[in-house]
Amino acid sequence: MILDFKRNDDGLDKDVRRTEIRRLKAVLSAQQQEIRGAKLPVIVLVEGWDCAGKGNLIRELICEMDPRFFSVKSFGRTHEYDERYPFLKKFFEVVPESGKFLFMDTGWMEDVVGKYLRREIPAQEYDRRVASVNTFERQLRDNGYVVIKLFIHISRACQLERITALRENRDTQWRVSGDDLWQQQEYGQFLKAYDDFMEATTKISPWTVLDGEGRQKALYDALSAITGNVEAAIASGKYEGRPSGVKFPLLGGPSQKDADLTATIDPKKYDKKLRELQEKLAKLHNRIYRKKIPVVICYEGWDAAGKGGNIRRLTYPLDPRGFDVIPIASPTPAEKARHYLWRFWTKLPRSGHIAIFDRTWYGRVMVERIEGFCSENDWQRAYGEINEFEKELTDWGTVVLKFWIHIDPDTQLERFEARQNTPEKQWKITDEDWRNRDKWPQYEQAVEDMLQKTSTEYAPWHIIESVDKKYARIRTLQIVTDALEKAVDENVVRGMKSRRVEKNS
Amino acid sequence: MILDFKRNDDGLDKDVRRTEIRRLKAVLSAQQQEIRGAKLPVIVLVEGWDCAGKGNLIRELICEMDPRFFSVKSFGRTHEYDERYPFLKKFFEVVPESGKFLFMDTGWMEDVVGKYLRREIPAQEYDRRVASVNTFERQLRDNGYVVIKLFIHISRACQLERITALRENRDTQWRVSGDDLWQQQEYGQFLKAYDDFMEATTKISPWTVLDGEGRQKALYDALSAITGNVEAAIASGKYEGRPSGVKFPLLGGPSQKDADLTATIDPKKYDKKLRELQEKLAKLHNRIYRKKIPVVICYEGWDAAGKGGNIRRLTYPLDPRGFDVIPIASPTPAEKARHYLWRFWTKLPRSGHIAIFDRTWYGRVMVERIEGFCSENDWQRAYGEINEFEKELTDWGTVVLKFWIHIDPDTQLERFEARQNTPEKQWKITDEDWRNRDKWPQYEQAVEDMLQKTSTEYAPWHIIESVDKKYARIRTLQIVTDALEKAVDENVVRGMKSRRVEKNS
Repeated sequence: MILDFKRNDDGLDKDVRRTEIRRLKAVLSAQQQEIRGAKLPVIVLVEGWDCAGKGNLIRELICEMDPRFFSVKSFGRTHEYDERYPFLKKFFEVVPESGKFLFMDTGWMEDVVGKYLRREIPAQEYDRRVASVNTFERQLRDNGYVVIKLFIHISRACQLERITALRENRDTQWRVSGDDLWQQQEYGQFLKAYDDFMEATTKISPWTVLDGEGRQKALYDALSAITGNVEAAIASGKYEGRPSGVKFPLLGGPSQKDADLTATIDPKKYDKKLRELQEKLAKLHNRIYRKKIPVVICYEGWDAAGKGGNIRRLTYPLDPRGFDVIPIASPTPAEKARHYLWRFWTKLPRSGHIAIFDRTWYGRVMVERIEGFCSENDWQRAYGEINEFEKELTDWGTVVLKFWIHIDPDTQLERFEARQNTPEKQWKITDEDWRNRDKWPQYEQAVEDMLQKTSTEYAPWHIIESVDKKYARIRTLQIVTDALEKAVDENVVRGMKSRRVEKNS
Repeated sequence: MILDFKRNDDGLDKDVRRTEIRRLKAVLSAQQQEIRGAKLPVIVLVEGWDCAGKGNLIRELICEMDPRFFSVKSFGRTHEYDERYPFLKKFFEVVPESGKFLFMDTGWMEDVVGKYLRREIPAQEYDRRVASVNTFERQLRDNGYVVIKLFIHISRACQLERITALRENRDTQWRVSGDDLWQQQEYGQFLKAYDDFMEATTKISPWTVLDGEGRQKALYDALSAITGNVEAAIASGKYEGRPSGVKFPLLGGPSQKDADLTATIDPKKYDKKLRELQEKLAKLHNRIYRKKIPVVICYEGWDAAGKGGNIRRLTYPLDPRGFDVIPIASPTPAEKARHYLWRFWTKLPRSGHIAIFDRTWYGRVMVERIEGFCSENDWQRAYGEINEFEKELTDWGTVVLKFWIHIDPDTQLERFEARQNTPEKQWKITDEDWRNRDKWPQYEQAVEDMLQKTSTEYAPWHIIESVDKKYARIRTLQIVTDALEKAVDENVVRGMKSRRVEKNS
């Protein structure tokens, strides 16, 4: 039991404590510059009982700090997210840039435990979310984040006292919500649930329990925990995790060698087939919108393989209000300064919507690997991190489809030359394309590794032969319509909650 | 009357029209590269009747375009915004980067007219919003945006036919909302309201009415309007508006000359006064939160004038869940590529929250003016644009407070040298600070112009003498608490709607 509530008096004199707090605040303030130099991002998660003094603690922590280098995020009950996005999205969204502090006023603990106790998610889904939280914390750690988790603990009697004091004062009585009263009444149930959650999430970053009944002591302990952890992290340098060794349900994975690049479609049949599939897709789009199924379609492929035209044939029948094409270029400075999946987490489709990524998170194991934009450790670890990311999406009910648009080097050369020789198309071909072409063998290997290591049962790769672009378009449309048809026909109630349960059995 | 619904047949043959549409789609596609080169941002606003085919039109417009250079935004009914932000924020948020197209599926027309007809805003507020829309469109134009406004018009009978067809089909009946049925029933009322709105907003960018009963004709007319306008804009180069000449209720405006830099506070009284004001502020923060009053506090001042410490004294008593300090540095590339107020519009506080800007939009008329980051025309025009921006905020009910933290050059030198000689503070002083110091006379002039031209009745400047930093802190705290006290005591019902009305009388 983590929350066994024994008062651990350190016997510090009141005045000495006050002096120490002043000293530690100055240390924390100075650490802002140190983490800036070391490019460390630091997350301080403050959880705890209602009325335990979370807001007050954060106020004291930040009061000497420079607002340019920290931010505060509060998470209350988040209804919209629960229905429209995977629950982790809201936390991924706020991760700080390297060199900055983030203080969170409640986070993934209150979110998961609260929803579980309010019966908004069943036990099975609770377990899954706990596992997701551990994955999330590991990914943060492995990518250099320092995560410090605090829990402010107060007894039932103390909570009652504070609630009563708030309610007796006209100016503050509105602060006491039904949720607070319910927690007070069900203190025992919450105590067990908090404790269970903490036990289950202590592996990656341990919890620090603060005694919320002595505010100065709690502040002092919080400052000690934060400055101590940050100091240690600065001393040991940015942490870089090893690949995690988690096993995924991998398929054999298609290989480029098995692709039949001579595949073609009879041009006479093409128009008819295209129209047929597009009409079908339009109807399916309607149905996934109504059933609130989120869809993520990933396009990767060789330069000039025909991704753009393929995407256009796919989007043509779609209602513009229900999809987005998200072109992925090299990351902006704000993106580079965060977990490399941050820019994808923040662009996920709402439930019922389709997001089409024109290039994707697989850049990590292709261009970033080959150009040395990340370490070998980083891209080796990425296969597992990406599998985890896609698992999070499919567990939530997302249809994830991944296309590798495939051609051979000769076809690419032909198309490059055609672009070069057509004035309106010259902007499409750059020196970089030629440089990438020179690295065909390295890319071929990277593609092969990617196909083998990230073709999971829940998010398999499809190689789309695209020497005949028309053939390729029909193939992707066929795969998309089949997958959406299957998804809308699955005989489950489509509210996110029940779907999640069914999916995670 | 703009919507006088006469069928304007251009007599084009069906096949010719089809060929023309194909040609114009190719032109539009090519224009994506041209506006990229010319750094023009283009907004295509598609408004129209329910069931007029807005989504379908946009689908056809974008189907040949490259998703890297355009985006589509849909605006349905937006409840959250109505209560939490000025209504223009959602539109400012989506303005495209220069070189890109934005297609809007309804926008400021449906938003304003719809809310008015649903009686969500009274006539007075409707008039105010129409004026705001004109200001918005002018600001966009003056800052180089091309705005193309389309309205798809259908008759009452045609709308009924389409609604009936949708309702008769099981797969599509859900698409007909109560709002659609109500519009059909109240067609006449809507016709007048749409027409009035269009008449009132045709000055800056005129409307193009499309006949939605002939879909090919509507598409052709839309393509002609868009490509024609874009071609003209490319030919004439990026537009740069002159200062608008709109008059604002200017106060005399404080002058730096009148500042008494010898002002001090007795250090013995300081601690007590500080505590008093901070306690008062904490209580007021509670009250503005409950009354949902948004607050914007702007800090500008000389380097080393003591902004940071001043802000910290102000935020110390505030609940971290209810305020944000927003440090403003030089704009990111994404910010630079948009209207210069974009990065401030997107950071406005939710109702009931406080946003403290550490440097502000006044950078336009100070550093950008002095360093030549914008043209003289741009910064001259900015005084009016900023007054309009702040008017939009205060009309909506925001308390706007602006502080110029003032010192003399000798004091600055002393502080610069102190920083230089204190190892922990050296990071705070850069070569740029010294370079800015050399331009003191230019800045002094720019500050003076700013104080004179943007001290309005609704958002006045306060010069805060800060040679004695303690004196300065007490002064700002006093001004803030006085202003918040006045705001919470105003005897109005605090729902945003009624507030707006009262504020705009």
